Amino acid sequence: MKLYDMELSGNCYKIRLFCSLLGVNCETVPVNLMKGEHKQADFLALNPRGQVPVLDDAGTVVWDSMAILAYLARKYGDGRWLPIEAEPMARVMQWLAMSENEILYGLARARAVTRFNRPWDLAQCQDLGRAGLGIMENHLERNLWLAGDGPTIADIACYPYVALAPEGGVALDDFPRIGEWLARIQALPGYVSMPGL
Amino acid sequence: MKLYDMELSGNCYKIRLFCSLLGVNCETVPVNLMKGEHKQADFLALNPRGQVPVLDDAGTVVWDSMAILAYLARKYGDGRWLPIEAEPMARVMQWLAMSENEILYGLARARAVTRFNRPWDLAQCQDLGRAGLGIMENHLERNLWLAGDGPTIADIACYPYVALAPEGGVALDDFPRIGEWLARIQALPGYVSMPGL
Repeated sequence: MKLYDMELSGNCYKIRLFCSLLGVNCETVPVNLMKGEHKQADFLALNPRGQVPVLDDAGTVVWDSMAILAYLARKYGDGRWLPIEAEPMARVMQWLAMSENEILYGLARARAVTRFNRPWDLAQCQDLGRAGLGIMENHLERNLWLAGDGPTIADIACYPYVALAPEGGVALDDFPRIGEWLARIQALPGYVSMPGL
Repeated sequence: MKLYDMELSGNCYKIRLFCSLLGVNCETVPVNLMKGEHKQADFLALNPRGQVPVLDDAGTVVWDSMAILAYLARKYGDGRWLPIEAEPMARVMQWLAMSENEILYGLARARAVTRFNRPWDLAQCQDLGRAGLGIMENHLERNLWLAGDGPTIADIACYPYVALAPEGGVALDDFPRIGEWLARIQALPGYVSMPGL
């Protein structure tokens, strides 16, 4: 299994982390975004969006971090990482949606502005990110994990850019339950870190 | 089954459309966003994000349009709307991710700027939306549907804000395959429309 990867990307890190938690071997293939390798024809043939991560599992190519997490959960995980009954699956999907909205367009974009000079409105991104953190904090006052009784791909999808939020100027001091949840993820067997954490 | 709903919301329309395609009865409960009903305590108890749509299925409350689509597919659909095998599910998830990114933060936000005076950068939103349409157009040159051989919740999730793109100043004239895909969805048994389409 190969992962087209960029070390500082939180979306790529989701996949490296989940593979490690699953005990699945995955070779990383670095893609040099600075040199524009993700916009060249051979890479666009893998992923028309021109983004990392992309997974190649013996010829089955999957792009998008959310889709890759679902693929890995269904193929290599037991049922707990992504349950398929209507209500438990919906609980996972709710937080996958948070990971694609408040977290990605809030926290991750704020970090992309401060770290990589991307052209977005920093205050708007930070506000959206903080709104997401507030919702998550309230949820974690009554729950150990985002969806159900144990970790799911929802936790993996939300974790990186929440943990990296301070890099985008969003402090986590006001969110103690989130701090405890981050520590629970870091204590999972097989946990691996990334630069900035 | 009750849907907390706003008629002009494409995210709410996804649910009304999917219920109709499934032949599932769903009572709509209008939420007056102009009066701020979505930010009041009783609504926030249903959905801490303070957004429509919210589904209440005999006491099982699900927020977020993507999560509601997955819930309905698993509970009331046959397996085709959301397959659970690793690769077919990943194909659906890829386009659900598109619906939450290029389509929501591109096309839907552009429409929210032009129709509802929201404070986002219109040109940035339109550019992101057009990038998504280009990827979709290429995909639909070789496929009738976004994921697999028939319609899935990926098509339902992408359809509204693609069809409404012209309201946000993004013309669809350069995307003939998308036009044919829109027509295929409109021809599905049980299809219902929304204002603006």
